[in-house]
Formats: sequence, C-alpha cells, structure tokens
Amino acid sequence: MNGADLQLDAQGRLKHFLSIEGLRRPILTEILDLAESFLGVGEQQVKKVPLLRGKTIVNLFFENSTRTRTTFELAAKRLSADVLNINISTSSASKGESLLDMLHNLEAMHCDMFVVRHSDSGAAHFISQHVAPHISVVNAGDGRHAHPTQGMLDVFTIRRHKGNFGSLKVAIVGDILHSRVARSEIHALTTLGVQELRVVGPKTLIPANVETLGVHVYHDLAAGLRDVDVVMTLRLQKERMQGALLPSEAEYFELFGITPQALAYAKPDAIVMHPGPINRGVEIASEVADGPQSVILEQVTNGIAVRMAIMALALGRGAGAEVAA
Amino acid sequence: MNGADLQLDAQGRLKHFLSIEGLRRPILTEILDLAESFLGVGEQQVKKVPLLRGKTIVNLFFENSTRTRTTFELAAKRLSADVLNINISTSSASKGESLLDMLHNLEAMHCDMFVVRHSDSGAAHFISQHVAPHISVVNAGDGRHAHPTQGMLDVFTIRRHKGNFGSLKVAIVGDILHSRVARSEIHALTTLGVQELRVVGPKTLIPANVETLGVHVYHDLAAGLRDVDVVMTLRLQKERMQGALLPSEAEYFELFGITPQALAYAKPDAIVMHPGPINRGVEIASEVADGPQSVILEQVTNGIAVRMAIMALALGRGAGAEVAA
Amino acid sequence: MNGADLQLDAQGRLKHFLSIEGLRRPILTEILDLAESFLGVGEQQVKKVPLLRGKTIVNLFFENSTRTRTTFELAAKRLSADVLNINISTSSASKGESLLDMLHNLEAMHCDMFVVRHSDSGAAHFISQHVAPHISVVNAGDGRHAHPTQGMLDVFTIRRHKGNFGSLKVAIVGDILHSRVARSEIHALTTLGVQELRVVGPKTLIPANVETLGVHVYHDLAAGLRDVDVVMTLRLQKERMQGALLPSEAEYFELFGITPQALAYAKPDAIVMHPGPINRGVEIASEVADGPQSVILEQVTNGIAVRMAIMALALGRGAGAEVAA
Repeated sequence: MNGADLQLDAQGRLKHFLSIEGLRRPILTEILDLAESFLGVGEQQVKKVPLLRGKTIVNLFFENSTRTRTTFELAAKRLSADVLNINISTSSASKGESLLDMLHNLEAMHCDMFVVRHSDSGAAHFISQHVAPHISVVNAGDGRHAHPTQGMLDVFTIRRHKGNFGSLKVAIVGDILHSRVARSEIHALTTLGVQELRVVGPKTLIPANVETLGVHVYHDLAAGLRDVDVVMTLRLQKERMQGALLPSEAEYFELFGITPQALAYAKPDAIVMHPGPINRGVEIASEVADGPQSVILEQVTNGIAVRMAIMALALGRGAGAEVAA
Repeated sequence: MNGADLQLDAQGRLKHFLSIEGLRRPILTEILDLAESFLGVGEQQVKKVPLLRGKTIVNLFFENSTRTRTTFELAAKRLSADVLNINISTSSASKGESLLDMLHNLEAMHCDMFVVRHSDSGAAHFISQHVAPHISVVNAGDGRHAHPTQGMLDVFTIRRHKGNFGSLKVAIVGDILHSRVARSEIHALTTLGVQELRVVGPKTLIPANVETLGVHVYHDLAAGLRDVDVVMTLRLQKERMQGALLPSEAEYFELFGITPQALAYAKPDAIVMHPGPINRGVEIASEVADGPQSVILEQVTNGIAVRMAIMALALGRGAGAEVAA
Repeated sequence: MNGADLQLDAQGRLKHFLSIEGLRRPILTEILDLAESFLGVGEQQVKKVPLLRGKTIVNLFFENSTRTRTTFELAAKRLSADVLNINISTSSASKGESLLDMLHNLEAMHCDMFVVRHSDSGAAHFISQHVAPHISVVNAGDGRHAHPTQGMLDVFTIRRHKGNFGSLKVAIVGDILHSRVARSEIHALTTLGVQELRVVGPKTLIPANVETLGVHVYHDLAAGLRDVDVVMTLRLQKERMQGALLPSEAEYFELFGITPQALAYAKPDAIVMHPGPINRGVEIASEVADGPQSVILEQVTNGIAVRMAIMALALGRGAGAEVAA
C-alpha cells in the first residue's frame, strides 16, 4: 500500500498526514497554498481564526519535545481548536495492545485528531491504521522515518523565497543517514520537481543507495554547495550516533560545517535553512545562522502556518469548506 | 451527617458531588437526564456549549491519572470553562494545614470548582467541608471510598441500553473489596431500584457484611452470572493487592475472568461493562471486551456527557438555568 | 541605564515590567487604577474580558512555581489570551546562546509576551534586552532581585484599605536580605510616597546600607511595629539560608514572629500582609494569619487583577485602548 492510499480518503482528499512519500504534487501544492493564506493570521491583532472551533486535537507525545509540541499547540489554538497534551513514556505504553486501548478511549471521547510523536519508525502509520474513521493522524516525527510537517514548512519557505522549484539546485548537508527531516525534505523536493537535489556528508552518514530517491551524493562540501540556490543543514543528532561514525565535532565542522567560506561556493543569493535547534559551531557557524542569507527563523514562523494548513485540510476545513459558526 | 446534607444546598440542589451514597433517586435521575441532553454535543461539528464560559475549574490531582484528568478536562472545555491542571505530590502537601492554605488561595483567585483525585478515602469530603461557599467540589476518586462519576456513567450506560432499572438483574464481578468503583456502582444501582444486584468474586476480595448494602454475594461465577442483564467487571488493581489475597492472574482468570463461556450464563442480550483500563486476559477476555455485547467504549463516551452534567448542575447551570452570554 | 529606560517605550508607556525600581509614580498609579477596574471581573458570572483575545502569552518558568504560574495563567485566561506553559530546567538551558535561540524561536511563532521566572537575578532584564520589538517581558521573580508583580499587588491591597500613602507608616518584617519581595515592596512604597517605611529583622537578615533605599532599620520587633498602619511579613526562605544566619525557627518566631502580642504594638486598625505561602508558627502565628486584621487572601485576589492590568498595559491595551473584536 503506498503513502497516498494510507493518507487520502476515497475522494482523494487529505485524511492523515503521515509522510510526504507517496503524496502527489497537487496535494502538496494545496497545503502550501492554504498555508500561504494562514501566514497573515500570525500578524493580526487577534491571531485566531474560528476554523476548528469545537474540535479536539490531542498531542500524543511518546517522545518528549517541548519545541515541536509548542508549534502544534499554537497552530491548533490559532485555529480555535481545543488542545489536550498527553505525554506517554514508552515504558508504560510498551504493549501494543494497551496503546490501542488508549487510542480507542480517546476516540470514544470524540477527539478529532492525534498529533503523534514517537521514537519508533512507523508509529504514526500504525496508529492511523487502527483508529476510528472520524480520526485524523498527523505525524510529528517517527523514529528515523519521517518528519513530514518539517519537510512541508521547508519547501514552503523555499517557495516563498525562490518561487518555481523547477529551476532550483538544492543541497541537504549533514547526517542524512539518521535524519527523518532529510527523508521528508527529499520526498517533498523531488515531488515538487526541484531541478537538482544533492545530499552532502561524510560516507558514514549517507545511506546506501540513496541515489534511488533521485538525489546526487557529494562527500566534498565545496563541490556539493557549488552554485546551489538553497543550503539545507541538518542538526547533528549526537544521541543517535554510535561508536566510530564521526571523528569529532571539531573535525565535522572543519569538513561539513556551513561557514561563510563554505557558503561562498553557493549562489550569492542562496538561502540557508536549519530545522533547529542549532548546534552552533558544529553543523553551522553563528555568522551564517544569524547572517543575511539565513531563513532559519522564517522557517519557525512558516511552521505555524503550514501546520495550521495540514490540520485544517485533514479535518475537512480546507479552502472552500464552510466554517462552522 | 449523611451524604445528602454534605452534597446539597439549602434548596436541595446539587452543590458538591462527593459520593452517590446518600443522594436520593430524583437527584440521580436529574443528572442522567441532563447528561442525555449533552450526549449530542460530542456529535456536533462544534463540540462546545457556552454553559460554563468564564468559569474556572481546577483539576486538583493528588494522585496521578492522565486518563481521568483527560475526561474531566474535556468535559470542562466542552462546557467552555477555563481549566487549570494542578498535580500535587502528596509528599509536598502532606500537612493538612498547607493543603487548606492552598485551597484558600485558589478560592481567593475566584476558582469555581475543584475536581479532586486523592489516594486517601474521604479527601474530597474533607475538602468540601473546608472550602468557601462559592466553591463546588467533585470527587474524581478518593482512596478505596468512591468514584461517583464513574458510578453515574455506568448507570447512565445501563439506562440507555436497558431502560427501566426495576426489572434488571446486575452482577458486579471482581475485586469488590478494594474497588471504589464497585462501591459507587452499588450505591447508584440500589438507589435507582435495580431488581437484583449481585457481587461475584473470591472470598478474599468481597468485603465482610457487604450484604447490608443490599447485594447478594456469589463466589461462583456461573451462578453469579446466571440470567443477569448486565455484567459489570472491575479492573484487578494489582498494586492494591498485598500478599496472599490472590493466587495468580492465570488462576483468577480461570475462575472469574469474563470469557465467552462465562458470559453464556448471562441473558443473551446482556451487556458487559468495564471502567478501564482493561487487563486483557486477567479480568476479561479480549473476545468479550471487543465483542458485540461489550459497551466499554460507550462508557467512555457517556463519561464525558455525565461529567458535563454533574459540573453544570453543581455550578447551578442545570436544565432551566439561564446561560450567561 | 535606569529602570524606566528599559521598561518604557519611546512614548513613555509600559513595554516590559521588570522591576519597580526606576518606574515613576504615574506609571504605578496607572497600573493600580486599571487593576481596580479588573477587580470586578473576578466577581462576574462570566469571569472574562476579551481584551487580549488572540494574543499568545508564554509562561517561561526556569524555576518551578505552580502557585505563581497559576496566577499568571488565570490572569491571562481572564483576559482571553492563549497561554503556553513552558518549564525549562536550568540545566538544559544553561548556555546563554541556546536560551537566546529558544527565545527567538518563540518570537518567530508570533508570541506576544514572556512571563519569566528564573533563579538568577537579572534574568528578566537580560531577556528583555534580547527579544524582538514586538515582545513584552514580565518578571515573575528573578533570584533575589525583584518580584515586581507581588510588590504591585501589595501596594494595591494597601491602597484599597488605607487610601492615601502619604500618611502611612509601614513595616516590612523578616528576611529582608534574601527577599526579592521585600526589594519590590520597598521600591513601590517609596515611589508612592509612604510617610515612613521600616524594615525589621535580625542583623544577619538586613542588607548592609539598606537605609540608602529610604527605609529605617529596626532590630527590635516591638519598636519596629509601634504605631504602624501596615505590617508586611515575609516568607522565611529556609532553602536560601546557609549556615549560621538563623538560630532556629522557634527562636526566630520568639523574636520576630507576628503574634497577637506583637501586633498589639501596631495601630489597632493595622492590616497584616504576607506574600504566601505561609510558614505558620515561624514568621506568623495562625491567629494573626486567619484573624480580622489579615488581608492575606485579599492579596491573592488582588494579585489576579494587578497581573491582568500589567499584562494589558504592556500589550498596549490599557484604559482607552480599542478592544479588538
């Protein structure tokens, strides 16, 4: 079963948002267009629209992340939904059976959406296949698999700066192997038809056969950044590293850190992105992170609008939907 | 002082909801009837009524329970109240004096209702006797004493399926001794005039003199279930067991677990209930919990409506009350 | 740079609320007057005004305090703002750099106000100097430095009971040395022109040169309380004590505890205040705390109104501001 079958309803509309893989370009474009219309909400005196009033959205976090939970909570509140935050230690919910009982209980309480964060790849897919028909599931990061709302906010940010994807060269730099963000970015960018997509990193941090996803592999930063329009850096997930994959942070920064010198290889108007939180002096130099080409904080702003769009669409409240009073 | 004196105001209207014991049938019926009217709110596009807008409800949980807290939080939000969640470790609030100071502080902040969960029997009663006149207290479970909102949602569920209590035979199966749920169910069912109420379990888990509450005791599951209309199972609170009360989970399941075979002793249209969370294969077989006679998830749905009704009544917003704009 | 420069905008209006030091009397009076108008909100059927609807207020607590967080959360909700609670252990946010990145992220999410509690003196000032122009910062207690909303609610309470400050004698009793509350009270009372301000405590708990703040020092309780209109007690912060500053709680109570006998030295209509939580039998006797001269619970009630006023003013929604629909 491909991604679209799992994520779309019988009319081809977004029902769950689990991974960008398998979603076709019109769906991604619909999300981006609706997000564009929500961008203004954050600038209003009253930062709220009544689109999801009376809906109940549950942040179901099996992996702690104040940062990600906050962005979903804000997006839900700005859509006027009620939000429940539930943190579950994986230990107490280790048996699949009791997890399902918990989900069925929340369904019975007439919750409408589960925003799921889990350290296991596939957790959001698993949950989406076991919930009642009235529930939408949004993946807020599952293991090494996907972080699709991050992928969408990244392409949203690129589109706002660079317009047409067909003429863009994009480089994703860093630990591709362990990064669910990279995986979601790759699927988003190839679906949207980017001209050239590169992954750049040490051999130990690039997955085998990644070329089958439609990317070009570079192990040399200068070559990988040459003439790109967009530099997407990744957080070096130190906790994910085991043993001898990496020599040292200093050596990593020397070879793959985005410094002003490295950035000079890219086009002069290239933008620099990072999903946060930043390890300054490891994957990116402060001069770049805080410099004129950085759009890192715009990504955060855009993330609220993109998550609002995904939540609204998945709950049947996209453009043209009637707003309940 | 009996339950009614503590729980009703001078006009005989519900003020606190501490235990079903002592409340007369018209009060229980009023709660059930109002809950019926709230059941539709969960089905609406906008799952909210403005009944308690501008009221402040405090979930005061001295004993951790995400599940119960969630049901009260949802009930309060669907009534449009503001909700404060306060978790207090009993250690830091061990002195009665500082507990009262904390309560008086919350009163001074113009909170309207305390939903109290505590491991000590009588905690909600104690608190209700020490709060300011404008505060309502709802017991969300106190020690082994009572869990009255659970008792009410159980009888609400029975009434929806079986109608008139006067013609019903009901069996409560399991650890009656340690169960606050059982105690509340017994008071609810006898007050509502059930035809016959049985408690079924091993001798070590049935309280002495329980017959004085108006129940019949069975130590044999087949005899206890014969011809009943309703089978109410209880969670086996493993943490409450000490020493030699129970042989083993497997042996318990063998003797008192609700299997399809055991259920065959009941009437063919008997319903099966459980307060959750379920220990599958201990007090109930999965085939029964997930089978056509199970109303376990309906209990969860009904629990929101019943808690909304109790909150609304205790805050003077029952049927006929004017809704503040 | 003095306090006013940091806290007021170019038009001289409140932007941040960091400390009372440096704010002039008209600003304090504006807060008190607006708080007066909010006092009625807590008495209404619907305890809400739409003044900050659609604003996002973040409780950024680096030091745990359920009590203080609750008062700010209630104040924000009664102004109809959305509230985010973020608890940060100082360990995980120990590097100033990552703290600033976190703040910039919250800014990028279009948050409007940070309510900051921190164990380091100066933390709220530091944050206010590094946030984006659209953010207001409110100090909810920083180290030993200031707790200015407590100071304001204290003078608000005094004004409601005693009217004109110019004719009042006030004594602050206890551990002046370690108390951010005392510091804020001293600045508030001297700015509002109290006739005479005394600090009373053992030599080890009175800061050197405190007279430069305009207070008179007493080491004898009877002399210090003689003929005062207001007795402000302080919580004995046991955790702040090191080594030999204090003999014993019993001896402290003997010498500086506010007993009925001690209170008899004050004017017959003197009011007794305490910022809470109370150590009964240490800094105050229960007969006094619960007696007719105590206004301790009124302070709590007033604290909500005063915090509402400070939040509304800092976000440009004082008297005369248009209320967004």
